[in-house]
This record gives sequence, C-alpha cells and structure tokens, in this order.
Amino acid sequence: MLERIEEIFAIGGGPGANRPGFGDAEQRAHDRAATWFEEAGLAVEVDPDGNLLARLAGEDPGAGEIWTGSHLDSVPNGGRFDGVLGVLAGLEAVQRIGRARRTLAVVVFRDEERGLTGSRARVQRGPLPEVYLEAHIEQGPILERVGAPLGVVTGIVGLARAELVFHGAAGHAGTTPMEGRRDALVTAAEFVLHARAAALGFPDCVATVGRLEVEPGGENVIPERVTLSIDARAPDRERLDALVAAIGFEPSLVSEPAPMDERVQAVLREELEQRGLPAPALGSGAGHDAGVLAGGGVRCGMLFVRSGAGGVSHSPDEWSDPDDIALCVDVLASALERLANAP
Amino acid sequence: MLERIEEIFAIGGGPGANRPGFGDAEQRAHDRAATWFEEAGLAVEVDPDGNLLARLAGEDPGAGEIWTGSHLDSVPNGGRFDGVLGVLAGLEAVQRIGRARRTLAVVVFRDEERGLTGSRARVQRGPLPEVYLEAHIEQGPILERVGAPLGVVTGIVGLARAELVFHGAAGHAGTTPMEGRRDALVTAAEFVLHARAAALGFPDCVATVGRLEVEPGGENVIPERVTLSIDARAPDRERLDALVAAIGFEPSLVSEPAPMDERVQAVLREELEQRGLPAPALGSGAGHDAGVLAGGGVRCGMLFVRSGAGGVSHSPDEWSDPDDIALCVDVLASALERLANAP
Repeated sequence: MLERIEEIFAIGGGPGANRPGFGDAEQRAHDRAATWFEEAGLAVEVDPDGNLLARLAGEDPGAGEIWTGSHLDSVPNGGRFDGVLGVLAGLEAVQRIGRARRTLAVVVFRDEERGLTGSRARVQRGPLPEVYLEAHIEQGPILERVGAPLGVVTGIVGLARAELVFHGAAGHAGTTPMEGRRDALVTAAEFVLHARAAALGFPDCVATVGRLEVEPGGENVIPERVTLSIDARAPDRERLDALVAAIGFEPSLVSEPAPMDERVQAVLREELEQRGLPAPALGSGAGHDAGVLAGGGVRCGMLFVRSGAGGVSHSPDEWSDPDDIALCVDVLASALERLANAP
Repeated sequence: MLERIEEIFAIGGGPGANRPGFGDAEQRAHDRAATWFEEAGLAVEVDPDGNLLARLAGEDPGAGEIWTGSHLDSVPNGGRFDGVLGVLAGLEAVQRIGRARRTLAVVVFRDEERGLTGSRARVQRGPLPEVYLEAHIEQGPILERVGAPLGVVTGIVGLARAELVFHGAAGHAGTTPMEGRRDALVTAAEFVLHARAAALGFPDCVATVGRLEVEPGGENVIPERVTLSIDARAPDRERLDALVAAIGFEPSLVSEPAPMDERVQAVLREELEQRGLPAPALGSGAGHDAGVLAGGGVRCGMLFVRSGAGGVSHSPDEWSDPDDIALCVDVLASALERLANAP
C-alpha cells in the first residue's frame, strides 16, 4: 500500500502531488487504481460523471450498498496521502473482508479539491449507497496533540467559495500620480487583509485567499484587474452566514455543514476502544466527499488518521506514520464488515 | 507613418500591444523597421546587444554622430505609440533632413520596458553618439492640461526596482486555524498597502506593485510564496533614496535621475517658439533610454507629444492626435538638422 501511495504521488511530476481534477494526471491515477481494483477481483464501473466504482457483489441482492473510498485528484504541489489514503485503505479493507451480506464498493470521486465535483454530481444523478465510510488524513494538528493515531469525525464544516474580480484603471507606473490612481491590486490587498480580520472575529472560522492573479502584470503598469478566490469555512450554518456577510461576498459555491451519522460514529468508536486505542471525536475543518453524500441523505462516517509535522497538508511535507495507516486499515475493515453484515 | 504605427501595433496579437523585450514579437517589429530603414537608403546595423541602428553617413567623417529613436518592445497589453512613435518620427525626420555634416542615425533600443536593457548595454559597450534626441509620447496628463501639443523634457525621474519574495507556510485552508497561520499573501498584501502609503508621503513620488504571483495558487491552500515587483520613482536622488528606505527594499535596478542637456533643450524650445507653439518644460515620470544615455555622458534631449485621454498609457486606450504627431516630426527634423550641422 505504501508503494502504491508513492506510485500515485509520482504521477504528476514536480516536488509535490500535481493531479488537478479532470486533468491527465488524475486520469492516469484513476486508470492505475482501476487496474488494482481488477487485480483484486472487483467489478469496475466508471459512472457518467467520471467517478470510479469497484464492487464486490454481496450475498443479499436486495440489500443496499456500503461504499468506502475518497479521491485521487490533488491540489497543486500537494501531499502524498490526501485522498489517496482513503482509496487504497478502502481497497485493502474490502479485500480483507471478502464477500459480505451487502455489496461493498470502493469509490474514487472526481475533482474533490476544487469543489467536490464528482460526489456532487453523483448525489444529483444517483443511485447512492446506504452508508459511506471514508478514511482520510486529518490535515490538522489535533490527533498529534492528543497522541491518538485515529479519530472519529463528528461533522464537516460548512464552506462558501467565490471568485472575485477587482477592477482598476491601467496606467504608466511612472507618470500617473498616486492621488489619481485606481489600482486594482491595492483594492485586492485591502480585501485580503479584511477577509483575514473578519475570520479572526468568529470562533473556529477560517477564510483564505489562495489564488490571486494580476492583469496585465507588467512591472511598470498599474494593475487594471485582479481576480482572486475566497474560501470561508465555519462549523455551523449560522456562523457561516455571518462570516460570509462580514467578508462581504456572494458565494458561488456553498457546502452545508454536514453532521456524520451517529450509528457509524458509534461503530468506529467501538472498534477503536476494542483495540485499546483512544477514540477522540473531532470536527473536520476540510470539506470532504462524505459531507456531500451526507447532504444527499446517505449515512456517512469518517475515520481520521493522525497527520504528522503539526498537521501540515496540501504540501509535500504532509506526513502520516505507516503504523497509523496500518491501524486505519484494520479499523476501517472491521467497521465496514460490521456495517456490511448488519441485519 | 500612421499606417506603420498600426502595422507594428498588430504584431503581437491581442487587444493591446504585446511585444515583450527579446520575444518573437519584438524581433518581428525590429525586422519590419529594418526593412523600412533599408528602403529609405539607411545603412542598417544590429549591434552585439541586439539594438538596431540605421545610419545616413555625414559629410564630415571626423565629426560625432547624432542619434534619434526609441524602442519597439511593449508592456503586456500596451498602447500603439509608446516607443514606436520615436522610432518612426526619427526615420521620417532623418529622411527629410538628408545628408548633413554629422552622421545621423535612427536607433531602436532593445527591451526598454522591463529595465532599459538595450540602452544600458550600449552605454557599457559603446561607441556612443554626441547627442541623442528622442521623441516620445508624454504618457501623462500635463500637456493636455496646459493645451500644448509638444513639450520640452527637463529631466527624467530616478527609478528603483526589485523583485521581492515573501515566504509563508503552505497548509490546508480549512484545517489550519487563523491564529497559527503564516500566509505569504497576507504579508504581501500588507507590503502593497505599505508601499502605497510610503509613496504618498513624498511629493512627486510614486510606487507600484505591478506584478504579483502566488504559489501554489490553489483555492484551498494557504499561500506559501508570493513573488512581486516593486517600482519606485522620484525626481531626484535624495527623494529616491528616502522613498526606497521608507518602503524598505533593496533595489536590484537603479536608474539615476537624469537631467537633459541644456543646449538641446534650448534648440527644442526655439523650434517650438518659431512655430508660435507653447514650449512647456516638464519632467518625465517614466524612465527612457535617453536617461540611460545621459547617465553615460551623452548630451540628450526629449521632445514629448501630448497624450490624449487624460494621459493614459501602457494600455490600448493610449492616444495621441495625428496633428500633434505631424508637429512632432516637423520640430524633431528641424532640431536634428541644426544639431547635425552645428560647427
């Protein structure tokens, strides 16, 4: 499994993971995973939105399906575990379980990082499973701080995003007096600082400008146009709405805060406790396909794996310990087996 | 001449001029100009740094040379007159004058916009002319305000430039609390606003961040690295040093404030007055190849042509009236002829 993680990591080239959604590198990762699924005897299907599903048929054809999985796209210069861990741990777990009462499937959702595209499309189009259980790295510092290899996710933060455009007037950087300028980058810089100040005003909320492009971009030309992304997150709808209002933007994408299913949380907690492991409950600051499926009425759960290096993610420095990953596969397999064989 | 201006303007494609220094489009503009020079009977030479010179040999082989000209590169999405006017007005003027005592040359300097590369190289390598007289659009609002078609430049502002890099720590936009972040774009935004505030503190000074790039540039990744350009300008060395110190950067390029030659200024003023035109004296907020040559000991002058549309430049909206351009060629030819035939 660790070798396969490295193989997927190497696909896009560069110092970090580079597999943007719907690009060649994501497709190559899907193709490689499909080969592994087939070698494991699973029935592979690509749905009309490009999501990859690999099924092990259950004994009871009338029962619903249980899915596990994640995504294989990445942010630019990302880490090796984000998404990939959930797909490969899911495959490993399904192989260990073998045939169960319900059909088990490993799913690879398309284009998660830029807006959960694949899982959103699947929720629109259906059909959907009974339960979706996703293993994922925490991408934060909490499990490391409390000394727990794994954690049970209680819910996923709400997220609002938009692309904003600031207009100014181009002009020569030497001949246009400061007083008469309309510099789009000055306005955008004020927005960047304003968004940060607004997020600091609400507990457990964050706001990020991750992308910013200046046009025309000449050293001696006053910026005429700046395009930037704003990403705001909050643990509940009330705070999300208040944060978006304080920053002052019209979201083009909103992902509702999504609680995880109580029964799935209980199964995960029990599996951890049976192994003598701590079972910390924690929220997810990152959006996940599990949040989208939960919004679509699917009972969902998430198992977080401790992130090392202070929880850094979306960076080549992203790290999780092989021992923690082994525990994750073990707990995931047991939990899935219980859910797949439940009456 | 106006047709040739449009022909050069069309070379790079897009809504504005797009001929970055040392790119294909600049080269095609040089090639086109070389053809026109040859058709006019001038002897064309490309110097080792890529500057184009077109000479009409003088009667006195022992006398120095008189140059006129400008540049054919452009900023991204720039205007049709910047640089091109000086080259084509120079050709027109030399054709009108014909053979004089001193050799006359039209020069096209390389890569002016990004750092006066061609004229700097020429000053290093030599040989240099006796007098350089450059016609250029004002790129500012003063001549329009005072109602004068042409103006005599007294000197060129000093300029300091650098590329600055701000480092932060990449991380997931959802899972990294605001308090623990090191966001390179937040630091860069503070710098953009600080540079503006600093420039507002010194009379007749300007500072511009025209280029800014964010890495890795993902919507949900905290910016790890921001690279930006800073361009600061002041009318004299004292204010330039104070401005650079107030902004707080180490210039990688400094262009000294450059006074224009008194005698050349007098010739231009006389030619304007003889035609019953106002002869306003004004400083240049933009850097020019004439400033570089003046720094290299060449007697220099500049004739500014009124910019319409409030003086907008480095934009497709850049405009100068054909009547003003005709007057410019007339005054340039007379002034060059006097300088070329002076004892």
